[in-house]
Amino acid sequence: MSLYQSLKEAVYEANMEIPRQKLAIYTFGNVSGIDRQAGVVGIKPSGIPYDELTPDDIVIVDLDNQLVEGKMRPSSDTKTHTLLYRHFETIGGICHTHSTYAVAWAQAVREIPNLGTTHADHLVASIPVTEVMSDAMIQGDYEHETGNQILNVFREQNLSASEVEMVLVACHGPFAWGKNPAKAVYNATVLEELAKMAYLTLTINPDTPRIKQSLIDKHYFRKHGKDAYYGQ
Amino acid sequence: MSLYQSLKEAVYEANMEIPRQKLAIYTFGNVSGIDRQAGVVGIKPSGIPYDELTPDDIVIVDLDNQLVEGKMRPSSDTKTHTLLYRHFETIGGICHTHSTYAVAWAQAVREIPNLGTTHADHLVASIPVTEVMSDAMIQGDYEHETGNQILNVFREQNLSASEVEMVLVACHGPFAWGKNPAKAVYNATVLEELAKMAYLTLTINPDTPRIKQSLIDKHYFRKHGKDAYYGQ
Amino acid sequence: MSLYQSLKEAVYEANMEIPRQKLAIYTFGNVSGIDRQAGVVGIKPSGIPYDELTPDDIVIVDLDNQLVEGKMRPSSDTKTHTLLYRHFETIGGICHTHSTYAVAWAQAVREIPNLGTTHADHLVASIPVTEVMSDAMIQGDYEHETGNQILNVFREQNLSASEVEMVLVACHGPFAWGKNPAKAVYNATVLEELAKMAYLTLTINPDTPRIKQSLIDKHYFRKHGKDAYYGQ
Amino acid sequence: MSLYQSLKEAVYEANMEIPRQKLAIYTFGNVSGIDRQAGVVGIKPSGIPYDELTPDDIVIVDLDNQLVEGKMRPSSDTKTHTLLYRHFETIGGICHTHSTYAVAWAQAVREIPNLGTTHADHLVASIPVTEVMSDAMIQGDYEHETGNQILNVFREQNLSASEVEMVLVACHGPFAWGKNPAKAVYNATVLEELAKMAYLTLTINPDTPRIKQSLIDKHYFRKHGKDAYYGQ
Repeated sequence: MSLYQSLKEAVYEANMEIPRQKLAIYTFGNVSGIDRQAGVVGIKPSGIPYDELTPDDIVIVDLDNQLVEGKMRPSSDTKTHTLLYRHFETIGGICHTHSTYAVAWAQAVREIPNLGTTHADHLVASIPVTEVMSDAMIQGDYEHETGNQILNVFREQNLSASEVEMVLVACHGPFAWGKNPAKAVYNATVLEELAKMAYLTLTINPDTPRIKQSLIDKHYFRKHGKDAYYGQ
Repeated sequence: MSLYQSLKEAVYEANMEIPRQKLAIYTFGNVSGIDRQAGVVGIKPSGIPYDELTPDDIVIVDLDNQLVEGKMRPSSDTKTHTLLYRHFETIGGICHTHSTYAVAWAQAVREIPNLGTTHADHLVASIPVTEVMSDAMIQGDYEHETGNQILNVFREQNLSASEVEMVLVACHGPFAWGKNPAKAVYNATVLEELAKMAYLTLTINPDTPRIKQSLIDKHYFRKHGKDAYYGQ
Repeated sequence: MSLYQSLKEAVYEANMEIPRQKLAIYTFGNVSGIDRQAGVVGIKPSGIPYDELTPDDIVIVDLDNQLVEGKMRPSSDTKTHTLLYRHFETIGGICHTHSTYAVAWAQAVREIPNLGTTHADHLVASIPVTEVMSDAMIQGDYEHETGNQILNVFREQNLSASEVEMVLVACHGPFAWGKNPAKAVYNATVLEELAKMAYLTLTINPDTPRIKQSLIDKHYFRKHGKDAYYGQ
Repeated sequence: MSLYQSLKEAVYEANMEIPRQKLAIYTFGNVSGIDRQAGVVGIKPSGIPYDELTPDDIVIVDLDNQLVEGKMRPSSDTKTHTLLYRHFETIGGICHTHSTYAVAWAQAVREIPNLGTTHADHLVASIPVTEVMSDAMIQGDYEHETGNQILNVFREQNLSASEVEMVLVACHGPFAWGKNPAKAVYNATVLEELAKMAYLTLTINPDTPRIKQSLIDKHYFRKHGKDAYYGQ
């Protein structure tokens, strides 16, 4: 049995949630998890259909993207994941998908405004969208630079990765994370639902304003932080 | 066996309809029921996923929100439910969800106009939307005030809770009710369908008028009241 | 065993297709069939959920809406069905639903234009929509008058019920028919798909023209009439 | 056992993916495959519902549309398939469907622009749409001319069938292909997803530009050609 068996199983289970939650067709998604003590990341192998995936297939790499254990190549998005783990020190899992409504907002290069309490239950800010990448970054170490684009938008907007657990990469699609791989997929599912709700809302009334700050704060802080008391 | 076993089972069954009817992802919803004689309300416990819920988990509280029976905390929305039970004396069950199209109308702060006979089969009026809550109410006893917003819009528009069994809370989402918990979820499902139909109709023709009063009355009164004769 | 056992079973099977094809929630639909030789119609009983329906529950009435056999009340829409059977002499089954996109077009009181070959494979014309009913008709024998509205639009547009097997009743929803109950539900399913395709097409390009007559004729007549040769 | 047993089974399996991927209702689709050495094509028989289809039902024809083996008529679209096989020499399977969003773009006679990396992962170009067919072609050998319309748009836009594996036939719907029947259905599923993503993107922001060429090239060439390295 692998030293990283429980990490592999958590990452495997989280990957299997992608098709169950209909967040992607075929293999258009991947989930990773980190064991901070061991300094290793478990991630979906490259190009394997979800219905053929087993816990043993999960590839273990270190934070410099070097293979530690596994018979298959890790997902090509591995460098994006490891960069985020190095800079977002509180997170334990990352989920990348091509879920349909979130991709549409990413392609439109629009952040998703906070229009209601479903959104405010999860985050105060809009769901940020990165800048479109420069040609130099695209032609350089692309998957690493994808991570940098995410770090940049968090830096510029002064966002915290433990408060805002989702982002849109411009022209590409969503990344979400959380304290473990299961929470990362949960946030990817919530993001897709928020993306759909915002789409419909702005079709009904294109001038819908953001919800008022007091209502955002009420919903966010009754679920998060030291005064949290809420569960549905 | 609990004194409130049949209430718990009815509330449990109604809660399980939420994922079956796809009215919410994860735990974004809750159903309660009331035993008017015993003066107690059964409601979903806070934060429990539907697929782990059992009838025994249903929490029993009184109309002043005091715990009567149960090992878990009641849903944080309990105060909204109990306020409605105290003022809407004919209702026996309440369902709150974050169903996608209904939330979109609530976020757009738009009532859902009566555009066709599917709507008129269930209610004469538009589906009302509350005012956006004041900062003072939000920062006060929020879940109680959510109930007050609903009572206010019913008072202002002179609506009867036994005739209009659904409402949108501005920037938040839908509440529906009925003579028992099962009927409350039925009405929440109907509301979501009416919300989608109205969305599509106004996209096809933004100037679609309300249907004529005689047609509303025909459809409503052939199903409701003393001259009812209709079933599909 | 009933004299009308095979009619009951055909009508039962066709009714069960409504939830399978997701054409309606709850009991928002009904299918009937006719035995022209016996002069009787089998139809869904009023208000029975599909998952409780059995073949024995199908109600048999004559063409004057008199009960012939059955323990339950026939669907309240029976008079619409029997009027259509009396005037559309070639049809053997009728299906009424509240399918979402078809209802949206009916509520917008817009016919569905023939925009592509999926439509032309089934009918040459637009899918017609009736006039909004007059107050006098609504307050009179309403379900009978619903049938009259359908007959009127077919008369005015000079349509044949064996060529155009679907219609939208203004502010209400779709009726479809065919040579037997199964074909009626097939046409109701096709109508819903055409309604969705037309909705999407006109959102992409609001000025999309009808397809050219030669293409309509090619698609329709390779599947219908004496020179038909087509199957996918 | 048939000489063409493995071709029949591959074509059968690929056809069964159409309902599984919800690419068509009823029989609104068909898949074929070619055995280049034997010079024969296996294709779905005409008008058979997917749930009655067996591998033995697959019809074998030669590239001149002459029956080689089979008890049923081949799909009426056979001439479109064989013409494509004769001119697109690298392809091994073809899939035609009436999937909803792809049909909407075809009916609007609009190519699907390349708006994001999900698209660029599969092709560099827009998904092309053919010209509307002339009356003479429609009234001539229609299914053969449908293939000619596809060849024409590839010739005019200087596209390669091994790089662009999908097309919209104006006023009709999508065709997709690949190195075998399974890959053809894969591409038809991807096309439907791209069609939906583009629809949503342009609703959110009608002025969304194509993604930049460097990003298209990065995504396409990391998955295709001699320098490919990508898998999700």
